[in-house]
Amino acid sequence: MKSKTHKQHPQLVADWQTLMRTFIRPENEATRSTLVKYMEQILFGLHDFLGDHVGITEEASLKELAGQFTDTRINRTPEKKLADVITDLIEDIAPHAVNVASPYFIGHMTAAIPFFMVHLKTIVAALNQNVVKLETSKVVSIIEKQILAKIHRLVYSRNDDFYAEHVQHTSTTLGSFVEDGTLANITGLWVARNKRLYPRPGFGGVEQEGMAAGLRAHDLDRCVVLVSRLGHYSLRKAGGVLGIGNRNIIGLEVDAENRIDIKRLKAVIADLNRPAARTGIIAVVGIAGTTETGTVDPLPELGEICAAHGIHFHVDAAWGGPTLMSDRYRHLLAGIDRADSVVIDGHKQFYMPMTSGMTLFKNPLSMEAVVYHAKYINRPGSVDLGIRSLSGSREASSLILDSALKIMGSQGYAILIEHGIETAEKFAAEIKRRDDFELMTPPQLNVLTYRLNPHELRGTPEKKTTDAERLNDINKLLQRLQREAGRSFVSRTTLTLPAASDTDTVVLRCVIMNPMTTPDILNEILDEQLNIYRKQILPDLDV
Amino acid sequence: MKSKTHKQHPQLVADWQTLMRTFIRPENEATRSTLVKYMEQILFGLHDFLGDHVGITEEASLKELAGQFTDTRINRTPEKKLADVITDLIEDIAPHAVNVASPYFIGHMTAAIPFFMVHLKTIVAALNQNVVKLETSKVVSIIEKQILAKIHRLVYSRNDDFYAEHVQHTSTTLGSFVEDGTLANITGLWVARNKRLYPRPGFGGVEQEGMAAGLRAHDLDRCVVLVSRLGHYSLRKAGGVLGIGNRNIIGLEVDAENRIDIKRLKAVIADLNRPAARTGIIAVVGIAGTTETGTVDPLPELGEICAAHGIHFHVDAAWGGPTLMSDRYRHLLAGIDRADSVVIDGHKQFYMPMTSGMTLFKNPLSMEAVVYHAKYINRPGSVDLGIRSLSGSREASSLILDSALKIMGSQGYAILIEHGIETAEKFAAEIKRRDDFELMTPPQLNVLTYRLNPHELRGTPEKKTTDAERLNDINKLLQRLQREAGRSFVSRTTLTLPAASDTDTVVLRCVIMNPMTTPDILNEILDEQLNIYRKQILPDLDV
Repeated sequence: MKSKTHKQHPQLVADWQTLMRTFIRPENEATRSTLVKYMEQILFGLHDFLGDHVGITEEASLKELAGQFTDTRINRTPEKKLADVITDLIEDIAPHAVNVASPYFIGHMTAAIPFFMVHLKTIVAALNQNVVKLETSKVVSIIEKQILAKIHRLVYSRNDDFYAEHVQHTSTTLGSFVEDGTLANITGLWVARNKRLYPRPGFGGVEQEGMAAGLRAHDLDRCVVLVSRLGHYSLRKAGGVLGIGNRNIIGLEVDAENRIDIKRLKAVIADLNRPAARTGIIAVVGIAGTTETGTVDPLPELGEICAAHGIHFHVDAAWGGPTLMSDRYRHLLAGIDRADSVVIDGHKQFYMPMTSGMTLFKNPLSMEAVVYHAKYINRPGSVDLGIRSLSGSREASSLILDSALKIMGSQGYAILIEHGIETAEKFAAEIKRRDDFELMTPPQLNVLTYRLNPHELRGTPEKKTTDAERLNDINKLLQRLQREAGRSFVSRTTLTLPAASDTDTVVLRCVIMNPMTTPDILNEILDEQLNIYRKQILPDLDV
Repeated sequence: MKSKTHKQHPQLVADWQTLMRTFIRPENEATRSTLVKYMEQILFGLHDFLGDHVGITEEASLKELAGQFTDTRINRTPEKKLADVITDLIEDIAPHAVNVASPYFIGHMTAAIPFFMVHLKTIVAALNQNVVKLETSKVVSIIEKQILAKIHRLVYSRNDDFYAEHVQHTSTTLGSFVEDGTLANITGLWVARNKRLYPRPGFGGVEQEGMAAGLRAHDLDRCVVLVSRLGHYSLRKAGGVLGIGNRNIIGLEVDAENRIDIKRLKAVIADLNRPAARTGIIAVVGIAGTTETGTVDPLPELGEICAAHGIHFHVDAAWGGPTLMSDRYRHLLAGIDRADSVVIDGHKQFYMPMTSGMTLFKNPLSMEAVVYHAKYINRPGSVDLGIRSLSGSREASSLILDSALKIMGSQGYAILIEHGIETAEKFAAEIKRRDDFELMTPPQLNVLTYRLNPHELRGTPEKKTTDAERLNDINKLLQRLQREAGRSFVSRTTLTLPAASDTDTVVLRCVIMNPMTTPDILNEILDEQLNIYRKQILPDLDV
């Protein structure tokens, strides 16, 4: 890596004068234009590099890379100037980072973001407000409340009076921003847990007294959360963190379309609700866009079941939420307005920079169950956003979402969403058309899975098991070889498919969110896979 | 607000063409220079405004402001262009945001950041890596491991062999980045909770089975965390979130110097350790820089007590941690290397933009207690950072810290730290020198509290209680009037001072971290306070 060559600046010393210059706004033109020049390098030097490298990254083994980042001492004197840091970034770091903006990068829920997002992030950094409290954010806290109301309205469509009352209400909240979907799911289940193990005479509530006292006060042995087995792993983590126990996040069987099995759910609830089961159900979770298959659970039915049993209905729409902005496809999320809490990620289909998540609550008083005060901020009666929030100090990423919605309009987002869904459909058709590939889960939103299933390997029925294992190995190898080649990237996961035998099925997973990902590019990716198979895998196979 | 005048862009429509232009790197010079021009506006338009307004913000009542942000519909068509968003920011938003960069803003742990931090944040946004997994970050995950090792070394000073082994070890971790100090404290206590309620025959551990099962398996009725009553409110929140119960975060009495009372701590531990108490001690928390008074607990004694009793020792050094970079003052944190876990915030005394927090663990295997895998990422054996982390998706703010340390050197940080501590000392001397002010808690680091105590109000001893209440009211009012005047800002809190009577004491709180905050400015702030008192408060007093 080149950094070593310009790492030594024997003249660099940290002194008061130099330091102060970095704090004071530069008055002279020369300094100003240098600082702007740096921004130009950041914006385009990096982009030009990425443009010249269509694929993922230059090749370098992880071990080789890791070997270059082993110095663990902080230098006493400065090692680099900002200019060097930027050059290093472009010359040394970017080539070994992942070009998530490439239209050939279709493996994860991370993609290109619009140019202006970088500007918006810069604005947030330049303002450097801390939305934990009004005294370090003022109008920015007010804007955050407004954008939460806008997203709440997108999800719940309550009436004008409702929003007029709550948009700037100082003691209610329509939701909470957090860092990401995991923390947003924890927030939703935190509130649900506290609602289920509510205060009673002689019991101050689970937040105050803890899980064990909560179960005792409610005469229960355990609490559970019910979700399809395709639920995001953050739900299990939430179970662990919240003291519920992650094995009490129960993953239910799915139907042929990978949606939670409603019959099964009803039976499980009936069983858990027997007094002898001594079990409290904290929440049923519906998924609006599973991570692995993009599937949407039957939200209307889930809503009905939860309402009938008085169970908190949480919807994990971290991925699918923004689909609501498309008139053409918002019906796919019908029933989401029945949810007590809804999670949506900003850095996924709102195309925000890393990272931002939200939990919306239907009831503006839900977060009363998790209120915290302090003596120097967040005092009772203040409008400090930190009173109702999992985290404390927080950057104003709400400002990015607010501005992005103004720049794009819901129309702009709808165009992106529709491109993703429709391109995924075309890709599915192409996979089905090809002899050597097999569509494993068709797209409901813009996620699909498939696998290479070369026609020459199709066995007779009695050889089925052997074939399944061999196909798994081939697809694992294929995914790795393609990733390492660095031209394009699909991810892989392992599904337990209802139709399959005992063996779990390794599948290739594809997420279409980059508007520059065209059917032609997807064809190229399939061609490349077939090529890799024929040249690097088939020769070693015992066919 | 002016935004209304240029809010209407009847010509704006979101279409595919326009949208794609925001995703594709601009090839022509005109577009490039426009985008760079925007950056210039963001960097200097904002700063010029702030420079012209030394104080906090233009005056506007909260209610008045809130009344302007009540529209809750997302516009279908775009409302604004990026240029308008930037203009709005400078003309409408910034005047009502808080100028945390002002040297007169000494009320909270938020201040000016060096210029280059904004560039570094922009770099992170432009790269847009997601460090939850290697497949969306690669070298950036490796850099994160390296910087964690550097900070670990700053705290623990283990030997070269130790760091050589762990810096890039794929299955151990020296710590974890999170969004802020609250999440960092939750992370530390999450690990401590799981360590205390460890797996036993027939019990899979608290993470898996939950708090109630954990207490049953360990034959306990409750678990507690011990901390001084000056502990940050996030510790109580952690107790609530983790199912421990926030009333089991026990706030112990402090000594005359606002440090945890060691005698009392020993007595409490002895009492809780009686078998009849049926109580498990999850952790003792030492504070290295309390939020309200900047006090450092006696870490060596705490370390010794924890070691003797096998209790997890957690140090909340969110504020004070970076003091370790000053050779002159690092002794103030002596004993921190005995901690099992240490929290340090990036956006506080590392002067990073909002927000970044870290939890360091002495034992590189500590986080094994909170490991989560999934089938599509974070698979067993992978080096994905998301395997051991409270959050999931995460921006690469580690890259900012890494670069900042290279640009500043520990020497540069030391200069800032030393300025803060020494200016606070001078300020304390000035407060003592003045007749009408009273130093309430002298600075140990760079935080102090004081109050206005006008000499004409000094009562005879028998009037003491009345005076105390009256002084509280006067200082509350004073702080509000000064904040509203918008020239300078100190915060206020309420302390239970060992020497005081039953009445808690309202104090003014001051945090010196902005290198541009000089003794002269601090004098001006005291003068302004005296003026406000004489002109706006005294006339209405019944003296």
